[in-house]
Order: sequence, then structure tokens, then C-alpha cells
Amino acid sequence: MLLFEFATTHLYQLKSSCPGTKARRGSLNTDHGTIETPIFMPVGTHGTVKAVTQEQLRSDIKAQIILGNTYHLYLRPGTDIISMAGGLHTFNGWDRPILTDSGGYQVFSLSNNRKLHERGAEFKSHLDGSAHLFTPENVVDIQRALGSDIMMVLDECPPYPSDHSYAKTSMELTHRWALRGRKAFLETQERYGHRQHQFGIVQGCTFGDLRRDSAKAIADMDFEGNAIGGLSVGEPTDILYEMTDFTTDHLPAHKARYLMGVGTPQNLLECVARGIDMFDCVMPTRNARNGMLFTRNGSINLRNSKWKTVFESADPGFESELCQEYSLAYLHHLFRCQEILGLTLASVHNLQFYVWLMQQIRDRLDAGDFHTWYPGMVERVGRKI
Amino acid sequence: MLLFEFATTHLYQLKSSCPGTKARRGSLNTDHGTIETPIFMPVGTHGTVKAVTQEQLRSDIKAQIILGNTYHLYLRPGTDIISMAGGLHTFNGWDRPILTDSGGYQVFSLSNNRKLHERGAEFKSHLDGSAHLFTPENVVDIQRALGSDIMMVLDECPPYPSDHSYAKTSMELTHRWALRGRKAFLETQERYGHRQHQFGIVQGCTFGDLRRDSAKAIADMDFEGNAIGGLSVGEPTDILYEMTDFTTDHLPAHKARYLMGVGTPQNLLECVARGIDMFDCVMPTRNARNGMLFTRNGSINLRNSKWKTVFESADPGFESELCQEYSLAYLHHLFRCQEILGLTLASVHNLQFYVWLMQQIRDRLDAGDFHTWYPGMVERVGRKI
Repeated sequence: MLLFEFATTHLYQLKSSCPGTKARRGSLNTDHGTIETPIFMPVGTHGTVKAVTQEQLRSDIKAQIILGNTYHLYLRPGTDIISMAGGLHTFNGWDRPILTDSGGYQVFSLSNNRKLHERGAEFKSHLDGSAHLFTPENVVDIQRALGSDIMMVLDECPPYPSDHSYAKTSMELTHRWALRGRKAFLETQERYGHRQHQFGIVQGCTFGDLRRDSAKAIADMDFEGNAIGGLSVGEPTDILYEMTDFTTDHLPAHKARYLMGVGTPQNLLECVARGIDMFDCVMPTRNARNGMLFTRNGSINLRNSKWKTVFESADPGFESELCQEYSLAYLHHLFRCQEILGLTLASVHNLQFYVWLMQQIRDRLDAGDFHTWYPGMVERVGRKI
Repeated sequence: MLLFEFATTHLYQLKSSCPGTKARRGSLNTDHGTIETPIFMPVGTHGTVKAVTQEQLRSDIKAQIILGNTYHLYLRPGTDIISMAGGLHTFNGWDRPILTDSGGYQVFSLSNNRKLHERGAEFKSHLDGSAHLFTPENVVDIQRALGSDIMMVLDECPPYPSDHSYAKTSMELTHRWALRGRKAFLETQERYGHRQHQFGIVQGCTFGDLRRDSAKAIADMDFEGNAIGGLSVGEPTDILYEMTDFTTDHLPAHKARYLMGVGTPQNLLECVARGIDMFDCVMPTRNARNGMLFTRNGSINLRNSKWKTVFESADPGFESELCQEYSLAYLHHLFRCQEILGLTLASVHNLQFYVWLMQQIRDRLDAGDFHTWYPGMVERVGRKI
């Protein structure tokens, strides 16, 4: 009885729609708080967003939700340790919502160290070569132990390019796994007293007919939300946009839509316009560690020696410690000396920028002029300074 | 006229003395603020305290003063860049006092890549092998360009062990350099409108007669403060304490005494008791990056697998983000995964601990019971948990 109630809880609330695009303003109601959408979710692979303290994540970045990677957490510290801690929220001290992926994407990235069966995905740990098996059922169990607010089903993420035949075979396996994963979810209970929700994943590579079939099949399984996987894996940007646009046409309006692993600031703007509510990507933090800053006027490569004597802020009016307190010359110096402070300041700044951008998007949706505002913003944030 | 005024400015004010030890309570009056002594100064080699943001340094750690290394800053970003920025305070955004060393210690650490002359120390950069010369005069010029509140004279820091004959020859060179450095300081002006002060450095290795002679010689040169160099270079701890105790007997009471490169929490307590006012050391930050935490109950090695399932704080009552928000199990996990967050949390925590310890010392000196309190504290913080 209780299980059925959980399965039909309305996680997503659609508040308004953009009059000129497919953009949506909504919210996600979780037991760890309400998430205003569209939203960007910082990635915390090992239960930590790289180079950022939880205090910076809460107070400076104002993240509403973070991600954890099931593959990494399953291997280290291990599901047993996180269970003993009372779940990932208790383990890492993050008391706002957490989404965990299914581990599928990481396993498929292991290429030579994994084998695919009907039953699941066999793989060897990148850490010690030990053998493991992920099944649609046990990744539900693992995510029950992690206690994420939103968990993902196991899927196969085929590479780009894939031919139609492989893409179809792979998609069909993903659908069978999704059914098994949904069943496992409905037959198990949350462990820490807060609700968990499960999202299905649409696949189909770059083929419109497969994306349509997959969207319908996944939507029919009645997950609490629907994700689009298998994009941003090397395909041209116009195909990313086309597939996203096409897929959201076949997803129900009353559930959240999550575009996995996307993307640049321009990608976020363009895909919000195509009906996406949720994003995650390592780009703001990974690029930060490579000295790349996102700003309101375009991106900056801090390693470029042209900044050596530029004693000005990267973006004087922007509210980040990096912009308010340090010059480009100092930041260039930090990256030249490989100082950890450079990694930290750039990581916090880039996440603040992504969160700021999503807030702008929500504000424009609330004001009703997102559709006239976003093309200029795409051009502006896409510049290279 | 102005130069003479600067030279005789009273930097240090002795407020009270401990009735049972040689410990002193005082303050240093700089143009970037008053520093309460005894004090520990976090080391910011490249103009950044490793893994710590300036905001954390100000708000969480509450550092009163930080160090910069002349050798490193001279090579990167270079004195010219810092001059163009308007000094180190402007370059790195730290508006409280800064002390810079003379570069001597780093040059002498290069062993095979440096040559000692009467004129100065020739060395090859550890970065690109380029040839450079530090003289007692040009390290004053460089530190004028850096704009540190307190600068150090060039000295030779002989290794441990050294024989008496080498130690004496080296000490005499240090004294000749100190005279030249003092002259250069008095003949040059500050560049950024705030006062700079110069400290002499006592050498003499582990020989009491040389330490006494050196203390008297350096004291006679009338620097604004006196430092003890050449200790904490590998000698046994009892010799460090003995030499410190012996040297402070021969230093004037109305000037600050700075023990360079020291040390453990126990070292700080013991050397305050022997009349030291100022300390610097990379230990809190370097050990933090190796997973070693200092706490009020002793030190903790976070890499030890015994913490894997300990879901408790390292020191529940201590006011650091690390102690207030994370368990030992989570911190162990961060170090195992080589996550930057581990380095940051441990670095901030260890500096908070050092600053806290110095505050305790000052409080006990103000209360008049430092001498009865500190032996128990030495025992307590010296434990291994």
C-alpha cells in the first residue's frame, strides 16, 4: 500500500510554460527540500564535488541538489560503509537532495573491462581489477543503500557513432532493463525514512525513430521522471539539440525531464528552450581545474600568458570570491604555480556561474520573456575572451 | 630624516611577562594592523597559503599575518609583476600584515645548484636552471618591491650537523651580510606608503658560544626585531629547546623574537615558554595534505584504515568545518580517493588549530597561569590518536 503511494507521488510540479519555446518553469518536491527547475546539478562523484567544500556548496554556490556516482561510491567507500553511515546524506553531510546515477555510464566507459549480458553488465574495477556485476535489480538495491532522493535505472549507453541496428538492439535491452529496474524499485522500500524516486532513461542514439520509440516505451513505465541518455557523447551540437527537441515531444509534460551529462552554458540555454528541466555535467568543475573560467561575457583560459599583467577581475560585477577579490594576473600565477587555490576558486566560481545562469533562466521564465532573452545570452556566454 | 624615524619605530610592545617562564605577551604594531603575540604565521609560499582561500584565512582561520617566500615570488610571478600590481598585498588580495623571508633558506636548500661568495649567493632556479644572484642588498630591494610589513635579512643557514669551525665561519658571513642588509634597508624607502620593518637573524648552529655571540652581534645592529634561524633543520628537539632558551637570554626584551620554521604544537608551547613571540611553519598545511590532523587531543592520521567505519568527528567540540560537519570515515574516504576536498578541509582545520593554540597561549598569559597550564597541554597535543 505504502509502496504504491510512493510510486504515484507527484515529484514534479509544472508551474508555467514559455510562450515562445518549449521551456518550462517547475519544481521538484523531495523530502530533502524543493528544487526549483530548470536546474543544474553539480557532480559529486565520490560524494564530494571536486575541490569544493560543502559550506561553499551551500553558502556560496547555493546548489539545490548534487549528484553522486553509484559506480564510484559502490567501489569506494563501498555500499556497506555508506549503509552503516545511514546513507550518503549522513556520510557526506549534504542535507539537501541528492541524485545518483545507475553506474551504467561509467561501466560502459570501461570498454575493454566490461561484458554485456541480458542479465546485466559485468565489469572489472578500474581500481584493482576485481570483478563485479551490475544488474537492473542490484543497482536499485545499491541506490536504496545510498539513499539518494532520485535514483536512475540501469541502461546501456552506446557510443557515437553507432549504426541503426546496434542502436536498436541496445535500446531494446535498455527497455527490458528499465522494466526490471522499475519492478525492483516498486518491490523494495526506502531505508532511511525519506522518499526515493526513480527516473527512466530514454536511449536511441542519434536516430529519430528510435528516440521516439524509446521515449514512448520509457514514459509508459511510469517512472517519477524521465531522463534522456546517450547524448553529449561526441555527436555534433546540432544533433544534440535535434534529438533533445524530438525526444521531449514524446515525453509527458507532467513529469520532469533530465538531460544527462549536458553541458556548456549555451547547451543549457538551448536545451531549456527544448523542454529540459534538469542538467548535470562535470564541465564547470573539470574545466575549472584546467584553468577555464565561465563568465557572463564568455569563457577565459587562465593559463594564457596574456593575463600575466592584467590586474583586473575576470568579471567585476559577478558575485564570486574569484571575481570580487582576485585579478586575472593573480589567478594566472596560481595556475602557473599549480596551486590548489586556483583549482578551488575556479571550481567554486564556475559552479556559481552555472547556478546563476539557471536562476536567470528561471527569472526570465517567471517574467515570461525567456524566448526573446535566451538567443542573445547564448551568443554572449559562447564568446571566448 | 624619515628613514631614521622608520628605523626607530617601536614595532613591538611588550605587555606582560609570565611569572614562571620566559613567555611574553605583546603586540606588533604594523600599518596593516596590530598583531597579538605570541603568534603563529601561516606560510603562503607563492602568495597563497596552500589549499586555503583568502576568505577561509580571514573568516575561518582568523590569521593575523601570513608569510610569503621571497625566493619563490622572485622567480614566479617575478618582482616586476608584483611591483606592477602595487605590491604583494594588492597582488594576492591579503590586506593584513605579511612577512617575507630573504630567500636565503631556499637558496641554501638547493645544495648542488648554488655557490656562496662574500658578495652573495649565486643559484640556479629550480624551475628552469637560469642563473641568479641574491645579495644582502638586492633581497632588500626585492622585499621593498614585495612590500611586506616585515622583511628578513639575507643569512646563511648551515646544515645540521656542522662542525664548530664551519659554523663560526658561516655565522661571521651572516653577520657581515646582516650589516650590509641593514645599511641597504636604511638607505632605501618603502614603495607603497606603508611602513616596512626589518628583522636580523641569529645563527650559530648548535653551539652555545656562537649563539651567544650571534645574538649580541645581531642585537647590536638594531633591527626592528630579531629572529633565530638555523634551527629545526634536523637537530634533536632538546637541542632546539636548549639553543632557543640560550639565545633569547641574549636578545633584547623590547623587540620581538621570531623562531623561524618551527614547528609542532609542542614546539610552539615549549618555545613560547623560552621567550619566543613569533613562529612560522609549513607543518600544519603540509601535514594536512598528507592526511595528518592536529587536534586538541593529539594527532590523527586520516589515512589509517581504522577510521573507515568511525562515523564520529575528529574533535566534536572544535570549531572547524572539518570537526563540525564531517566524520573520520568520510575524511578517510576523501584521502583514499585523493579528493582535493580532503586537502582543503585538513589544511583549514590544522591552521585553525594552530591559531586556536596561540590564542589559548595568549589567554593563559593574560590570565597569568601559562606556566602551570602549558606542560599539560604539551602532553595532551603530543599524543597520537
